[in-house]
Amino acid sequence: MAQNVYDNPEFFAGYRQMPRQVKGLDGAPEWPAVRAMLPAMKGLRAVDLGCGFGWVARWMRENGAAAVLGLDLSENMIARAKETTADPAIEYRIADLDTLDLPAGAFDVAFSSLTFHYVADFARLARTLHTALAPGGHLVFTIEHPVYMAAENAQWQADADGTLAWPVNGYSREGERRTDWFAKGVLKHHRTVATTLNALIDAGFAIRRVGEFAPTQEQVAARPDLAKEIERPMFLMVGAQR
Amino acid sequence: MAQNVYDNPEFFAGYRQMPRQVKGLDGAPEWPAVRAMLPAMKGLRAVDLGCGFGWVARWMRENGAAAVLGLDLSENMIARAKETTADPAIEYRIADLDTLDLPAGAFDVAFSSLTFHYVADFARLARTLHTALAPGGHLVFTIEHPVYMAAENAQWQADADGTLAWPVNGYSREGERRTDWFAKGVLKHHRTVATTLNALIDAGFAIRRVGEFAPTQEQVAARPDLAKEIERPMFLMVGAQR
Repeated sequence: MAQNVYDNPEFFAGYRQMPRQVKGLDGAPEWPAVRAMLPAMKGLRAVDLGCGFGWVARWMRENGAAAVLGLDLSENMIARAKETTADPAIEYRIADLDTLDLPAGAFDVAFSSLTFHYVADFARLARTLHTALAPGGHLVFTIEHPVYMAAENAQWQADADGTLAWPVNGYSREGERRTDWFAKGVLKHHRTVATTLNALIDAGFAIRRVGEFAPTQEQVAARPDLAKEIERPMFLMVGAQR
Repeated sequence: MAQNVYDNPEFFAGYRQMPRQVKGLDGAPEWPAVRAMLPAMKGLRAVDLGCGFGWVARWMRENGAAAVLGLDLSENMIARAKETTADPAIEYRIADLDTLDLPAGAFDVAFSSLTFHYVADFARLARTLHTALAPGGHLVFTIEHPVYMAAENAQWQADADGTLAWPVNGYSREGERRTDWFAKGVLKHHRTVATTLNALIDAGFAIRRVGEFAPTQEQVAARPDLAKEIERPMFLMVGAQR
């Protein structure tokens, strides 16, 4: 079973204060780019893997999705998500993506935000999602970028004139990464960009769009702390189609 | 017109001493991975963009290619390539990839090794190659990895215990990069992984395989200087199909 740090009280107390948890999609600077990868939601059956508090599930319903299934490993997350809606077309369920099974052809869209880097066997999950999508169905997801997560507990390096650089090491050494993030030893799984894309291709997906988050000038003006994200790719975003 | 540093005598004097120029494909540690992306060559019409001394063109003919067109901006390269073969099915021609035109449907394979990072407008070149390939035709190429080339004149950083890290900055700032490599101010064009893959998708290609060079244990045993290439992705390798 995957590590369930989200139900660690210390972790959760910090995590729930993040802008993206407090403000929802407006607090997620990559959301405009991710949204552009999603198909028109009207009438579609969607699954959100690692749904958290349900911000995207509710957005999907507001944009016409016929039904949304939100899955998360965390009881905290699922309990909170359930509190936010009485919509009978949104269902929330506890699930472990490392052992997930889904009915064949049951969804038109599979979505996931910043969750798949917790999954040990991404190739297995890609095959599961390919089977769970109807032909033509879309998979859109984000992960922490492998360049961002290759080195454990990396820190920005500044040279004499203040230029920031992000240190990369172990890029080709795939596997577990332990990082301190609201709690000690949060477990993630590092895979290269190539491994992630090839797992999708091998599962039968066509790659439709690849994104690497960089803030816009407007976003940097509104949130100066985002400026440094121009220097390194922080999130990898992928749109694929069965 | 693209910068033609390969006809700078100082540059060329250094460049021609590189293992991959002296030993050919055996001196290019990424070649086994690149070769695995190529289709069986028998009977195929191929074009090699940035053919250099013609090592790959000759390999293609030895493996049954019907005809190979080798293109390079450098008179030095083309002159040397012509000296290495009397095969009438190999043609070498000077060409600038920034303004290249090729006949429609004329090739079954387009190949390029470590050249497209010199091209200013990769989207234009991707469209040119899509048109030049017959339906089902393959495009296989390598470039310097954007993580390798984002920071100008970057140097390995070693921490107190000797762990090496590669500094990344300006990853999302695409455009010109000047680097000192056998000559001062060699001009390259930095693009993100996403921009490169999306240009191919937009031109009509299906992405078949993505690779990021890492040396094998056997390669490191034979060439210990390659060990550090496990820490960073040095080359990006792409297989695509019309």
